[in-house]
Amino acid sequence: MERVDFSCVELTGGFFKEKQNLIREVTAKAVYDRFCDTGRFEAFKLDKNGVEPHIFWDSDVAKWIEGVAYLTMEKKEPALEKIVDDLVLEIEKNQLECGYFNLHYIYHNKKHFENRDNHELYCLGHLIEAGVAYYQATGKRKLLDLMIKYVDYVEKRFKIDKDTGFTTPGHEEIELALVRLYEVTGDKRHLDLAEFFVNERGKRREDPEGYWCGGEYNQSHKEVRAQDSAEGHAVRATYLYCAMADLAKKTGDVSLKNACKSLFDSIASKRMYITGSIGSTYQSESFTLDYDLPNLTAYTETCASIGLVLFAQRMLLLENDSKYADVIERAIYNGIMSGISLDGKGFYYTNPQELIPVLRERNHCVYENREYFPEAQRREVFECSCCPPNIVRFIPSIGNLIYTTDGDKIYIHQFMESKAKFEIGGQSVEIEQKTAYPFDGKIEIVVKGNATVFVRVPEWYDSVGGYVEYKCQGATKISLDYEMKPTLIEANPRVVDGCGKCAIMRGPLVYCMEQIDNGKYLRDITIPVNCQFKEGYDKSLCVPTLEVDGYRRVENGKLYQKYTGEKREIKAKLIPYFAILNRGTTEMQIWHNVR
Amino acid sequence: MERVDFSCVELTGGFFKEKQNLIREVTAKAVYDRFCDTGRFEAFKLDKNGVEPHIFWDSDVAKWIEGVAYLTMEKKEPALEKIVDDLVLEIEKNQLECGYFNLHYIYHNKKHFENRDNHELYCLGHLIEAGVAYYQATGKRKLLDLMIKYVDYVEKRFKIDKDTGFTTPGHEEIELALVRLYEVTGDKRHLDLAEFFVNERGKRREDPEGYWCGGEYNQSHKEVRAQDSAEGHAVRATYLYCAMADLAKKTGDVSLKNACKSLFDSIASKRMYITGSIGSTYQSESFTLDYDLPNLTAYTETCASIGLVLFAQRMLLLENDSKYADVIERAIYNGIMSGISLDGKGFYYTNPQELIPVLRERNHCVYENREYFPEAQRREVFECSCCPPNIVRFIPSIGNLIYTTDGDKIYIHQFMESKAKFEIGGQSVEIEQKTAYPFDGKIEIVVKGNATVFVRVPEWYDSVGGYVEYKCQGATKISLDYEMKPTLIEANPRVVDGCGKCAIMRGPLVYCMEQIDNGKYLRDITIPVNCQFKEGYDKSLCVPTLEVDGYRRVENGKLYQKYTGEKREIKAKLIPYFAILNRGTTEMQIWHNVR
Repeated sequence: MERVDFSCVELTGGFFKEKQNLIREVTAKAVYDRFCDTGRFEAFKLDKNGVEPHIFWDSDVAKWIEGVAYLTMEKKEPALEKIVDDLVLEIEKNQLECGYFNLHYIYHNKKHFENRDNHELYCLGHLIEAGVAYYQATGKRKLLDLMIKYVDYVEKRFKIDKDTGFTTPGHEEIELALVRLYEVTGDKRHLDLAEFFVNERGKRREDPEGYWCGGEYNQSHKEVRAQDSAEGHAVRATYLYCAMADLAKKTGDVSLKNACKSLFDSIASKRMYITGSIGSTYQSESFTLDYDLPNLTAYTETCASIGLVLFAQRMLLLENDSKYADVIERAIYNGIMSGISLDGKGFYYTNPQELIPVLRERNHCVYENREYFPEAQRREVFECSCCPPNIVRFIPSIGNLIYTTDGDKIYIHQFMESKAKFEIGGQSVEIEQKTAYPFDGKIEIVVKGNATVFVRVPEWYDSVGGYVEYKCQGATKISLDYEMKPTLIEANPRVVDGCGKCAIMRGPLVYCMEQIDNGKYLRDITIPVNCQFKEGYDKSLCVPTLEVDGYRRVENGKLYQKYTGEKREIKAKLIPYFAILNRGTTEMQIWHNVR
Repeated sequence: MERVDFSCVELTGGFFKEKQNLIREVTAKAVYDRFCDTGRFEAFKLDKNGVEPHIFWDSDVAKWIEGVAYLTMEKKEPALEKIVDDLVLEIEKNQLECGYFNLHYIYHNKKHFENRDNHELYCLGHLIEAGVAYYQATGKRKLLDLMIKYVDYVEKRFKIDKDTGFTTPGHEEIELALVRLYEVTGDKRHLDLAEFFVNERGKRREDPEGYWCGGEYNQSHKEVRAQDSAEGHAVRATYLYCAMADLAKKTGDVSLKNACKSLFDSIASKRMYITGSIGSTYQSESFTLDYDLPNLTAYTETCASIGLVLFAQRMLLLENDSKYADVIERAIYNGIMSGISLDGKGFYYTNPQELIPVLRERNHCVYENREYFPEAQRREVFECSCCPPNIVRFIPSIGNLIYTTDGDKIYIHQFMESKAKFEIGGQSVEIEQKTAYPFDGKIEIVVKGNATVFVRVPEWYDSVGGYVEYKCQGATKISLDYEMKPTLIEANPRVVDGCGKCAIMRGPLVYCMEQIDNGKYLRDITIPVNCQFKEGYDKSLCVPTLEVDGYRRVENGKLYQKYTGEKREIKAKLIPYFAILNRGTTEMQIWHNVR
């Protein structure tokens, strides 16, 4: 199986086209402005009297560069390109003779590669990805070449001289980046170095005694082929799993492939929120246990959901199974898009799965170690700013997720209004999709060329899922109608926060209630299982809505009383989850009592 | 209104008689043994080469002494008396010239009264209560006199010289103890000193800047008459409110009485668990917000529930309102009795309101600042051992809660098989109750004497509550039948953890489910609202049980799926909450999905 690169795919309308426009017109600049405010661009001057760089600033900016590259792939952005070019000159100027480049370490003149937790290789990884993307977008290879030189130095220190303070990095990223580098350079040393970092991981304990989290935190508790459950920090984990899948594909390593399959199933069958978000606890921002998906205290970092999609995308290159595409769909329309505000300027690090704002006051007289609740509102600027630029690079390249090829077969995994043109079996094929997905399940696909086309049947439409085969000759029209009916969804009985409740989905979209539409104490609302939904539209949010008859209890001020069964009928209004909390802080819930 | 002291009341059978026997035969000795193991008795030798006393050990032993005194009131326990007498000699020997006595401070030769958080006055308070009780039980007044001398010193330092490092103690207890002392000595200085400590509280900030909790923690955020919601550490709070109620009674201070009423209602209407337990968070072991009663993370300390009952008991001396007796009933049969194991040797500090043991593994790779969950099993020994001796003194004196008098009126607040004889309006009255309460609502009361008797109507039986008046002449028989039918109880809609659920009560007893009877994933069980209950008996626990038809969902391994409505009918078994977790660690829940 092969990827069909987003550069072969042009979104022509619909949901993600709008979002790409938003990134191009608002977000890329907004993130740039915030990065300037915080000194992230200034830091590249490496002025000892200037701003002091944090250990991860290189990566924030690198992801932003990658995003600019992807925007440029579709349409030139001269102003943004200028910023990048100037930045690359600064990198060139400050890169050490040996090839090393790291803002924080050079600023402080610190010894390289002593502390696996200080993000050196993590930053390099993102700079590599930026270099690759920028080269592919503009033909300019300076950044790429600078990073190749740095990689040579890394290979020397870690693999040849073996004189570093650690063997594998505390935050995975370099591994998948080196595979990307290899795909561009064809230099087998780059692939080998990726393999080295993946294979060495977990062989011996690299964290100090009493490290605040166990080896699971950074997936160093076992060698990777022995790992069969998703553990630890969710972003670190998914970035590692991406590299494992890449290597399994490139090397044909079956044990690595099997580990990837186990890890994916561990997430998708037992450790994933209905929004496609992952990361159940703020403690080490990580996975916890099977079926442990608490809503009020979910961590569910935007970057983690993106990581899950990148992992799932790579699994599709290992085997054609619609479950991977179903997870991608779930995340891109829900748990990732919640990460950016509708106006394109605000971001969530943690994405609430339920919000009851008053509970934040629970420890109003406690100053330390307060109970964790996710942030109620998105922010324009962050201290740890990994998520905003991750969105900036993810959305413009979302075309990566739509198609794969397998010999002369084409797989259509995602439905987006688009035109694609790519080579398969020596011939050129064009595929056009017309659809209002995710709001409507009608999809018109026109295939120009000779190919066998497999079209995904979404699992929400038909739980059997899979792909339907179409043998296409000349110009073939495929008309689909994946009818979207609002549906009650239940969770596995082991999911504590799902018991007695249902979520509501319509097509791939998870819907939710907000207090601003429904009043306080959303938890008191009950929906009858035989409910009818009415479809509507919210003009302020510009999103479709659902309305359903439900009821609340009658409150009489008593704390405890005999069950009365007294009800007050109400009409509950629901909005798509991706649009949450764009109207101020308010209660929000995905899971509702049903009866 | 006046108390009818438990010394006038003899339990002759039934639930609390059995518990009193347990305290006498097992618990008093078990606690003594554990106190010996930990050095709490040894510490009274104040041997500088011996065991180092903690700051609160005096109070642990004092409460134990008080318990021994109460047991002795009913029947002599020579061996225990000897232990107390020996201990009192040690106290006498080591009490400083000035009157001061404190194990930790004398051991370390520390300056007195510098740090309000170090429990000096707290320990004195419990020693006073021990001295009073022991004198009333045995006629021996040495301990009492030693404490009177200490109180003189406290008065001198705090009230006259005003040269202490703080004005009001960080842990309330001295206030109510001084009132008890006054009741025995008649010395108005003792009452005045209680008033002093209560009135000075909250007048000025006494905790250092950056104190880890705000003034609410120890109810010092406002002067007491201005406090209208229960805040902070639940034991500290209720002990303060006891003293406030005592003083309101003794002085007729209306603003103090009104504050007490607000504080009581704050707890009983908005901040109390269905078990009569209080304290919603481990953070400062305290109250949080109105209606904030999370089950999985409840703190609900045994001592706090006892404190609530002691407070409610005092409110009955301020006004005849059955709501106070209803709260007493709720706590004594549920949230307090859960604090001791059925075999009398194990104790809960925190009493789980829901238990899902696997969740404790949520942070299996985190070493610090783990999420809080209550202990699953009771323990025989504790570092902080306030709860076990609190139970040892509470249960033998539980007769305190049954009757009050008001002129020539007698109020029967609680129903326990018992014989009581006391004076009212110059004549002797005898009241005998025959009942199997809390398991049966039939109560036969025989009143010998002339009095107007008011009998409480439990709120669980008739939500109007109140008292029914009986004019009694000669020998009067009152036959009651408060029929106990298993009932679904709902919580106020603002209680997040109660939404969509009901608890089950039968009479005053809260029932609950345990995994050992019903299988894992109790949260998945649903009870139909029109359910029928069957009554049974558990021979291993020796408690009545309930059985009810309910259902679980059919699990098919999927994480999310369309709601199917498929059910698997089950019979759910419930046991009384006070008997929880006597059969090993198991899931336990009070609130169940209903439909």
